[in-house]
Amino acid sequence: MAKTAAVLVIGDEILSGRTQDTNTGAIARFLAALGLDLREARVVGDTQDAIVAALNALRARYDYVFTTGGIGPPHDDITADAGAAAFGVGIGYHPEAYALLEARYPPGAVNAPRQRMARVPHGAALIASPVSVAPGFHIGNVYVMAGVPSVMRAMLEAIAPQLPRGPATASVTIEALAPEGKLALPLAGVQTLFSDTAIGSYPFYREDGADKTHGAQLVVRGRDPVRVEAAAQAIEDMLRQMAVAAQRVN
Amino acid sequence: MAKTAAVLVIGDEILSGRTQDTNTGAIARFLAALGLDLREARVVGDTQDAIVAALNALRARYDYVFTTGGIGPPHDDITADAGAAAFGVGIGYHPEAYALLEARYPPGAVNAPRQRMARVPHGAALIASPVSVAPGFHIGNVYVMAGVPSVMRAMLEAIAPQLPRGPATASVTIEALAPEGKLALPLAGVQTLFSDTAIGSYPFYREDGADKTHGAQLVVRGRDPVRVEAAAQAIEDMLRQMAVAAQRVN
Repeated sequence: MAKTAAVLVIGDEILSGRTQDTNTGAIARFLAALGLDLREARVVGDTQDAIVAALNALRARYDYVFTTGGIGPPHDDITADAGAAAFGVGIGYHPEAYALLEARYPPGAVNAPRQRMARVPHGAALIASPVSVAPGFHIGNVYVMAGVPSVMRAMLEAIAPQLPRGPATASVTIEALAPEGKLALPLAGVQTLFSDTAIGSYPFYREDGADKTHGAQLVVRGRDPVRVEAAAQAIEDMLRQMAVAAQRVN
Repeated sequence: MAKTAAVLVIGDEILSGRTQDTNTGAIARFLAALGLDLREARVVGDTQDAIVAALNALRARYDYVFTTGGIGPPHDDITADAGAAAFGVGIGYHPEAYALLEARYPPGAVNAPRQRMARVPHGAALIASPVSVAPGFHIGNVYVMAGVPSVMRAMLEAIAPQLPRGPATASVTIEALAPEGKLALPLAGVQTLFSDTAIGSYPFYREDGADKTHGAQLVVRGRDPVRVEAAAQAIEDMLRQMAVAAQRVN
């Protein structure tokens, strides 16, 4: 069985609609490549109670939790404190993180807000941040990362060697030029025959001047590439019999 | 007090990283304009247990829940069944929804998968879908909408008249050309003086050829526009005293 995972995005700016979250999608693709099974994602604001409740719910339910946001210098960045509270441990300066700050800034510039970036829950290990000075940290099954997407992605690469590999997921996408409602019944039949794969149907509408295209992307996913390919061929046979134009896409 | 809300995005395609969710952001901006307070967002896959658990957790905790995804014809679109299970009610064809299908398709084309689009939990009211044939529905404090972004946005507009208005949120954004760590301490001081506003700091890095810009967007939000403006001016005073270049942005 693949290990399970959840994402927790922390930040008022996502819930106000000011910032479009892209970290969930980046972590999703990263985990899919490792063979881990992302089961849930949540977004909460910069409130200790909300962060602690979400952390405790997710870390109990899934093998791994990946958080983004709230580890910078500003007063409303409280993820380290919330992490300590969730695990019921104290919090303090991590000597290695503090040394990174002192190496980065001129003497006297490591002010109180910057010092906050070196505070991690007791027992946490640092996550290297190749593109910023403030590290993330890892405690229990929770990985705490930055919210800035480029910094977050670099931290993901840094922790990749620590994470287990699961069975890779094979995937084939077939674009069919017919409405979903016409395809759904035979598609459900293919799903029944290939119950060890997951077949999804995603409608699309494209307008290119007077040309309107209306169709569905049919996606087969599964652990066994032979079964995924067999299911994809069954769908292609079905589409040919229905005289529906179709092609594989990436 | 503003009414609270949560978003529940339903779909394996988000958790696999195949599709970037944009519905959460669209709903967030819609709710902010109405004066409702979005507190949490979740993403779960196309699994009845996961959908039911999330629906029941969120509808108990918040005044309103808005879901997207899982109401089309495919076999893996199970949001209506999950909604009925969450509310502990039966499910059946809604006569008005069924009539919409019959009006839309030629005789005989309302096949079993299309009929599924007219199934709603007992006691649910329809949400009109101006841009597709399948309606959403509304049961208790839960609004169930389509996953396709253009269809979802049209449904949001359709339900807007039914939703309460809360106090509008005023917001000012100041872009400051200094690192967050330099600004955080005086900014925390302004936050203390204006505790009826929420002040956030969001770092940015821009590279334009050889030019690198490094700064932070400082965002003041609050219910009282006079207090938000006063806090923004206090931040601008602070930045002038620090000789940090700054400007308001939209």
